Amino acid sequence: MPTGIELAKEKKLEGKALAMKVNGELKDLTANVDKGADVKLLTFDDPEGKAVFWHTTAHIFAHAIKNLYPDALNTIGPSIEHGFYYDFDNLTITPEDFRNIEKEMRKIAERKLVCERKEITLDDVKKLFPNNPYKAELAKEFAGEGKTLTAYTMGPDFIDLCKGPHTPHTGYVKAMKLQNITSAYWRGDQKNKALTRIYGTAFPSDNELKEFLKQQEEAEKRDHRKIGAQLGLFMFSEKVGMGLPLWLPKGETIRHELIEYIRKKEEEYGYQFVWTPHITLSALYHASGHLPHYQEFMYPLMKEDEHHEYALKPMNCPHHHQIYQRLVTSYRDLPLLLAEEGTVYRKELSGVSSGMLRVRGMTTNDAHIYVTPAQLEEEFIKVLQLFKEVYGVLGIHDYYFRLSLPDFEKNPDKFIGDKKLWDGAAQSIRSAMQKFGAKFEEAAGEAAFYGPKIDVQIKNIYGREETIATSQVDIIVPQRMGLTYTDEQDKRQHPIVIHRAIYGSYERFFAHLIEHYAGKFPLWLSPVQVKIVPVAERFVDYARSIGATYFKEGVRVEVDEGTETLNKKIRRAELERINYILVVGAKEQENKSVNIRTRDNVVEGEKKPDEFLKRLKQEILDKK
Amino acid sequence: MPTGIELAKEKKLEGKALAMKVNGELKDLTANVDKGADVKLLTFDDPEGKAVFWHTTAHIFAHAIKNLYPDALNTIGPSIEHGFYYDFDNLTITPEDFRNIEKEMRKIAERKLVCERKEITLDDVKKLFPNNPYKAELAKEFAGEGKTLTAYTMGPDFIDLCKGPHTPHTGYVKAMKLQNITSAYWRGDQKNKALTRIYGTAFPSDNELKEFLKQQEEAEKRDHRKIGAQLGLFMFSEKVGMGLPLWLPKGETIRHELIEYIRKKEEEYGYQFVWTPHITLSALYHASGHLPHYQEFMYPLMKEDEHHEYALKPMNCPHHHQIYQRLVTSYRDLPLLLAEEGTVYRKELSGVSSGMLRVRGMTTNDAHIYVTPAQLEEEFIKVLQLFKEVYGVLGIHDYYFRLSLPDFEKNPDKFIGDKKLWDGAAQSIRSAMQKFGAKFEEAAGEAAFYGPKIDVQIKNIYGREETIATSQVDIIVPQRMGLTYTDEQDKRQHPIVIHRAIYGSYERFFAHLIEHYAGKFPLWLSPVQVKIVPVAERFVDYARSIGATYFKEGVRVEVDEGTETLNKKIRRAELERINYILVVGAKEQENKSVNIRTRDNVVEGEKKPDEFLKRLKQEILDKK
Repeated sequence: MPTGIELAKEKKLEGKALAMKVNGELKDLTANVDKGADVKLLTFDDPEGKAVFWHTTAHIFAHAIKNLYPDALNTIGPSIEHGFYYDFDNLTITPEDFRNIEKEMRKIAERKLVCERKEITLDDVKKLFPNNPYKAELAKEFAGEGKTLTAYTMGPDFIDLCKGPHTPHTGYVKAMKLQNITSAYWRGDQKNKALTRIYGTAFPSDNELKEFLKQQEEAEKRDHRKIGAQLGLFMFSEKVGMGLPLWLPKGETIRHELIEYIRKKEEEYGYQFVWTPHITLSALYHASGHLPHYQEFMYPLMKEDEHHEYALKPMNCPHHHQIYQRLVTSYRDLPLLLAEEGTVYRKELSGVSSGMLRVRGMTTNDAHIYVTPAQLEEEFIKVLQLFKEVYGVLGIHDYYFRLSLPDFEKNPDKFIGDKKLWDGAAQSIRSAMQKFGAKFEEAAGEAAFYGPKIDVQIKNIYGREETIATSQVDIIVPQRMGLTYTDEQDKRQHPIVIHRAIYGSYERFFAHLIEHYAGKFPLWLSPVQVKIVPVAERFVDYARSIGATYFKEGVRVEVDEGTETLNKKIRRAELERINYILVVGAKEQENKSVNIRTRDNVVEGEKKPDEFLKRLKQEILDKK
Repeated sequence: MPTGIELAKEKKLEGKALAMKVNGELKDLTANVDKGADVKLLTFDDPEGKAVFWHTTAHIFAHAIKNLYPDALNTIGPSIEHGFYYDFDNLTITPEDFRNIEKEMRKIAERKLVCERKEITLDDVKKLFPNNPYKAELAKEFAGEGKTLTAYTMGPDFIDLCKGPHTPHTGYVKAMKLQNITSAYWRGDQKNKALTRIYGTAFPSDNELKEFLKQQEEAEKRDHRKIGAQLGLFMFSEKVGMGLPLWLPKGETIRHELIEYIRKKEEEYGYQFVWTPHITLSALYHASGHLPHYQEFMYPLMKEDEHHEYALKPMNCPHHHQIYQRLVTSYRDLPLLLAEEGTVYRKELSGVSSGMLRVRGMTTNDAHIYVTPAQLEEEFIKVLQLFKEVYGVLGIHDYYFRLSLPDFEKNPDKFIGDKKLWDGAAQSIRSAMQKFGAKFEEAAGEAAFYGPKIDVQIKNIYGREETIATSQVDIIVPQRMGLTYTDEQDKRQHPIVIHRAIYGSYERFFAHLIEHYAGKFPLWLSPVQVKIVPVAERFVDYARSIGATYFKEGVRVEVDEGTETLNKKIRRAELERINYILVVGAKEQENKSVNIRTRDNVVEGEKKPDEFLKRLKQEILDKK
């Protein structure tokens, strides 16, 4: 029986093969392969090969940390999309320490320390990881009562709990790079301690790392935090608090355009708009079931007196349900489509480093569609249509839907309520997706407890998949809150509710839009659409007169009255990503014209201001 | 020396004269008048005569209450604009008890009980009002150490602390009416106990009372609570909480039109828009001085952990000040005009009965204008101009400004900071008012602690004066929060801030607008602008086709597809205050026309739908 290493030699993949798949199972290359088995050698070109490579790097990183910071407690360190992370407790480092840690990692790699699989017992774990409650917890979970579990050594001085596989030794990993530090709760649960999470990556060669870093750099230029600061779109304030963005005038302009645009669309689709307060007596959330189940994500309750305890709303639905009860009595009142730009507050993990992507105060482009079971499919198709239309206008084409359904076989208890109702709802949505021709994948068992849902999945600038928006079908809460209508037979029924947010939250969506456009917003969204640049002070009046006309016609225009050189002014306007730069000097003043150039340095030349204004207005109208 | 009663007889005003003014001082008619004194007899036609009449009625009411509910504790009972109120502790009554109380009041009036002024001591007070802490508190305040104070008897069984004057006996009061019950804190201070306040009025004759009640009834038809419910504009929910309105679709449509209209105006005036969260770390309010001074009006703080305590914002300024700090460095950045439709939460006394007039969650049409002292006057004139323009469009012409200034002589401690700064600010505002030609009155000593302010005073449907909006000048908080800019000499200075809300809060303003228009909103604000009424089912398709065209062109239109008679449908549309009702039947379908009538039953007759659409669009644009 040859080992994987021997097979790799045969196939001239020595040093390139990292692990293997034997009859579909991932294995270390050091394992023996039965004759006739189906073997696939995994290299860095295979996604699974990459995962092994980065997982080994994670162990190298942990080894380095233990060498340098013996008191640090390692917890878990998986491979991820472009590298790995590792969470440590009792570790305080800054990015300035990365250089030194990388040096230590390189030493470990160069020593080609053997990575070896071991079976160990729970008693071993106690000895190997003294005073480490995290490993103890994991070991208990993986091993079960009295059973053994696996660990990997890395030379004589390091061992970590691990299912493997790993590269045969550390020498496979050549080019390493630590990227950033953030914090994360143990097992993602806010009730637990916050750990220090370090992200890193590695490649088989320096060139590959360089190429990757260059791509990253390109992506970082589009980073919404960077562009947001440059363009003055939003800010955070220590005094206001973490994850609570303040939209600056330029960002608010875009927010307002997005809101007015979707409101117009929603009007066309038959939505009605409501406005509800941001607080409520906590009784409402007891009725809806959010309390106590969702309380960990809610801000602390506000107890005014014995009878009045208020809650900041983490979602808008219970408020909308109150309005439903006022507006609906019969099936003739359905479907009812209630929309609101509803600001909600959720006590989520939010770091300085995540900008608008992870916030605690967010405005959702929320709506609730109340339907009879018979209306569900048709209304769901309309939701898909609205997604397509809006995303199309915003140039977002590369997305798909993940349809989360219940799994009554594996997880019968997770999904409450009547299985028939669930099946009906699931079938309506699946059918809607198919009829509409939506690109979608099904995920059994991922549904919310109250109904099936779809997530809209996009790729971010780093190529990572993210959920940008969701839509959920709710068959449980309407019953729980006693929402009813009388049907054609005059019988009381409960409506089904579609929760949907086309933009998701404005904060997250805005982060994505900034990165999507790299700050170069289309004309209709741009906070400043036109900058008029006089080449000298004596043309300021002429520039102003054009500015005034454009402003009156609804164009967002600025006149640069500064005293810098023309080139500097143009450069600044370009950096501000202003769509059109209109230069005016002696010739333009005499000809009553403007000289037009774009932020991308395309010179369009002399035009009459009125003529160009017409084109601007059309372009704004067309949302191009 | 004759008494006032004798003078009244002489002047044939017996029974009509209620009190008198002797050398400018109010006196009982039973008092003697010195020879040569300047005497004016006051009848019900004089405002001061009315006040005496209603004040006596208040005593009659209190006497009746003490007769019927001996345990009730009387506190104070002044005359007000159209009658009086009286606040009682330990009194639980409902409007159903009014009849009985009025009967008792009439008995007291018919007995013509003499109202007599007495000088009493603090010891007398203790005996006369045993177990009444309110009277004890008042007596102490009015009497000072050891001095006497005045009280009025009303026959043998009733006495009340009072400065007077009163009518000579109770027989002057003929027609009495109790109006409603509300609750009010002792001395208007939330920290005190809530008392039962009963409003009532009275007249010298049944006819005058009847006339008054008829006017009231007319006013009540305009009542925003009534119309709000009829038209489905807003709602309250017990589950959400007191004073927390939910805007229903039709109300939200008006709200949105108001917002978009003023945003456009504000844009013209150079405002920039921001959006800030509804919560903040409480540290921000410590810095601004709101905590602990304003805490009684704030919802309870939310303590997340030792270091993070959040507050729901009761105003937007401290958030805007954070943005100021981001955007402003030099005088060149000023003036900065930041506007936000900011929702704030204040723990104010709010009753079921006050509708949108007294709420606890309100969206303010807020803005902060940051200026140098030299810019204050000009920017304040622009604020006055904006008030005038917006109120003009909304048909609000009958208003004036109350300018509240400090009174450093009487109340030097109330107004903190540099007197020169105060004087400068006061002078700038006064000068702005004069230059602009604003109708205004000055009120010395009424300024806020941080600067002078103006209140916009209107009359409500009951003829009562109300503050609909305010604008304040803040010379203190910018210093306290460390807001600065560098001036022309490169020296650090603090800006002055104008807080202004043209609409005040949308809730209160909406209440006023509903009453002002009696629900008959102008076309641009109407939630439904046009209703198309087919005379029979076979014309529904035709009606729909016109509806679809109108909708596409931005008109808010409904088609009444019901099966009722034409008259019923028209009547319903009128009750819904829909501006135009378009009837279509055989003739209209053949002629491709519509038959137009207004909600006020003016029949305009047959017109082409396109032609009428043009007119509609113009009317909407003109905001007529």
